[in-house]
Amino acid sequence: MSKEITSRQQDYSQWYNDLILKGGLADYSAVRGCMVIKPYGFALWENMRDVLDKMFKDTGHVNAYFPLFVPKSLFEAEEKNAEGFAKECAIVTHYRLKADPNTKGKLMVDPEAKLEEELVVRPTSEAIIWNTYKGWIQSYRDLPILVNQWANVVRWEMRTRLFLRTAEFLWQEGHTAHATKEEAIIETEKMLDVYADFVENWMALPVIKGIKTANERFAGADETYCIEALMQDGKALQAGTSHFLGQNFAKAFDVKFSDKSNKLDYVWATSWGVSTRLIGGLVMAHSDDDGLILPPKIAPFQVVIVPIFKGDDEKKLIDEKVHTLIQQLKQLNIRVKYDDSDNARPGWKFAEYEMKGVPIRVAIGARDLANNVAEIARRDTKEKTSVNLNELAVYIQNLLNTIQESMFNKAKAFRDEHITEVNTWDEFVQTLDTKTGFVSAHWDGTPETEEKIKEQTKATIRCIPLNNKQENGNCILTGNASTQRVLFARAY
Amino acid sequence: MSKEITSRQQDYSQWYNDLILKGGLADYSAVRGCMVIKPYGFALWENMRDVLDKMFKDTGHVNAYFPLFVPKSLFEAEEKNAEGFAKECAIVTHYRLKADPNTKGKLMVDPEAKLEEELVVRPTSEAIIWNTYKGWIQSYRDLPILVNQWANVVRWEMRTRLFLRTAEFLWQEGHTAHATKEEAIIETEKMLDVYADFVENWMALPVIKGIKTANERFAGADETYCIEALMQDGKALQAGTSHFLGQNFAKAFDVKFSDKSNKLDYVWATSWGVSTRLIGGLVMAHSDDDGLILPPKIAPFQVVIVPIFKGDDEKKLIDEKVHTLIQQLKQLNIRVKYDDSDNARPGWKFAEYEMKGVPIRVAIGARDLANNVAEIARRDTKEKTSVNLNELAVYIQNLLNTIQESMFNKAKAFRDEHITEVNTWDEFVQTLDTKTGFVSAHWDGTPETEEKIKEQTKATIRCIPLNNKQENGNCILTGNASTQRVLFARAY
Repeated sequence: MSKEITSRQQDYSQWYNDLILKGGLADYSAVRGCMVIKPYGFALWENMRDVLDKMFKDTGHVNAYFPLFVPKSLFEAEEKNAEGFAKECAIVTHYRLKADPNTKGKLMVDPEAKLEEELVVRPTSEAIIWNTYKGWIQSYRDLPILVNQWANVVRWEMRTRLFLRTAEFLWQEGHTAHATKEEAIIETEKMLDVYADFVENWMALPVIKGIKTANERFAGADETYCIEALMQDGKALQAGTSHFLGQNFAKAFDVKFSDKSNKLDYVWATSWGVSTRLIGGLVMAHSDDDGLILPPKIAPFQVVIVPIFKGDDEKKLIDEKVHTLIQQLKQLNIRVKYDDSDNARPGWKFAEYEMKGVPIRVAIGARDLANNVAEIARRDTKEKTSVNLNELAVYIQNLLNTIQESMFNKAKAFRDEHITEVNTWDEFVQTLDTKTGFVSAHWDGTPETEEKIKEQTKATIRCIPLNNKQENGNCILTGNASTQRVLFARAY
Repeated sequence: MSKEITSRQQDYSQWYNDLILKGGLADYSAVRGCMVIKPYGFALWENMRDVLDKMFKDTGHVNAYFPLFVPKSLFEAEEKNAEGFAKECAIVTHYRLKADPNTKGKLMVDPEAKLEEELVVRPTSEAIIWNTYKGWIQSYRDLPILVNQWANVVRWEMRTRLFLRTAEFLWQEGHTAHATKEEAIIETEKMLDVYADFVENWMALPVIKGIKTANERFAGADETYCIEALMQDGKALQAGTSHFLGQNFAKAFDVKFSDKSNKLDYVWATSWGVSTRLIGGLVMAHSDDDGLILPPKIAPFQVVIVPIFKGDDEKKLIDEKVHTLIQQLKQLNIRVKYDDSDNARPGWKFAEYEMKGVPIRVAIGARDLANNVAEIARRDTKEKTSVNLNELAVYIQNLLNTIQESMFNKAKAFRDEHITEVNTWDEFVQTLDTKTGFVSAHWDGTPETEEKIKEQTKATIRCIPLNNKQENGNCILTGNASTQRVLFARAY
């Protein structure tokens, strides 16, 4: 089985695709740039979604649902936002098909069913939501509005990759409305913290919190906060963004509120989102040449049990012990699968669950039973141990925590090794080309310089880290004065 | 507050809209026929979804996600299905907007970004899913496939109504693949049972299980099973459908499997779905002229507590008692809201939660405290009782069960009273016009007669009940021989 996976060294990009397809996370579809999320991949997404959803609710948010379509006239209301997304939109122009008179059994778009106004399939929902909020907000008593939506969105990307960049993807988008600028900024930062907490403590992926430069800012935002993670090939991945939208959308959609002294003002806004793209980052950051390695806290199955037996009698004895174990594990809220199917040999199953990244594999054979033990294998380190059956459930519980922590530490060590301070252009280029990772360098603060660096090296400014150290220096490209280092990287 | 609601007698249809809008379930949107599901409505949907999702998983199903778009060539592959949905499809024809050269700040569809093949926004996903299953199924070992999807779908309905019939709606669609016809039929019936169980035991809505006539069958199905509920105005509502698809989609998409003896055959299929339409049914079946009445099992809040006080001292004493009560209720897994906001008077809050259909209201004032009691009000019957605070939590727990049962019984009594056997055309018409409800009558079994009856009375055959009694009779319209009665009704 593992032989079917391209190694990272051979072709990192193909390795990634192999894992997604052969690990059973997703499949290509008949629609350009759209993928099918397979049951195993969707179970992973459900676990991520459920944790995030609880975090949102624990911070006072509620869910709602807004239309998939945005009328063109609303879409264009906030000009920067419209400009940012106009080039990659799916547009609905008609509402009916009819029989094609020239080809039996075929359908054609009915030219008589042309919409008066075209509809944009939402690439993001600020426009339709702020148009709605206009009707919900009159006074400070109606604020804050703390709404989140789980939805599909469509961005007609030219080059797509499973999970990382697909034409349609699943995400959540929070859209909040506030009476003051301060409150909106606090919300923006709070949700960035929620994302960092989730990605680090559930996905075992260390992130750097920061602010985007004007060039990389969300179209329509005053400030974009982000969390940036590092992949094994040394490229960065934007894992989540939280936008302070100022009063831009309130002005575009004329959403005003009267404060306690009856003064009218525009409402302050934030929006924030993470998507199925996170799954791509998870795969790229943790997996190896034998398959996926999933963090226990969000793995669809945390433990798989494989029996090794000859004949029904041995099987029956093993079943008995396993059923007790399963009960014990379930009481500890551990997600366990017993694969006693008879259409594959244990070796095949071992490779299959290695491929699927199940954190712990338990193998029990007749000889193990005689000794009242089972063989435990960790997916992340491949270490094997023999453990007494009486202690197994608690052992597994502890081991799951160990694996979660160990995966985070490994990823963090790799990430920390791959933040390099450089002071010259040559060092900068060489680090990007050979060592890869984040490069911490001085930049003169102008969009022009940022653009030139991108053109010459394909590296972008991933973020200006929060609480960034202020120090005098010289821009690596122009030599102009700079007050702080920023983090560059090539990125997904 | 209640004065703002149109009464059922005055205008049933307006009463319904008032409840949806003023109860905070949904709002109109800027997109024709699409609605915004507001937080309170979405919390209701989340509760329904979570229960159904667990039921699906408990019966062996897993979730997945398939693309929103269906290429036209796939859409037309299963001819009956395509024909059934072609007239109400949103069609994506372009993938880019550009600046309108004639109007500054406006966008227009870029004619150079026309898709080679148009994409249909899924009205249902059989086509895209069976095109995918083709790659997943080779042998009997790959079967059954028991997949469900929670998704949005779009049907360009000409006349829309909040929840009941919207252009975009949320639903789940199960799509299963089987090696034998028998297994597929068992699955179809099993999921009908799951729906009936959910609608009766969670939504407190009695349903009749049956089979649709050929006229009313899902386009592309060999047999459509359904559950039919009755609304307070005597109209029926199709609450869920489960389709036995035969080998129609397997043939259209060439999905074959080899059985144990290596013989190739087409795969057997089912699909089944319920949608946000259920919320419309829930509202219409249970509510009254003062607002919504929600069944405790799925109500976003099961209990609301309203304090009645003068000054901070009284408030503090009440708070103390209430916090204890809330803890007790939460330990019993009861969803409770304490509305101690100071921007509305108790009377206003009473009306508000009556409108929102919260099953139990608890009011606690200073005098109540002195007597160690609180006033309990049932939303469904409006009965009020004074209950000792020490017993309150358990009292509420029991009362929630009582309300759930009582709501079902009330709806069932109404439904049962509104099933009328008739034997002549005059009786038939008169019953539809005056008594309303289901009319049980003989029908000669032909689509032509069914169509004529529909034209003359607007009544359709809602279903042929499962295990229907066989008896000889004469068709109410044609007088031709009939072997069983079927259920007619006017319907949503």
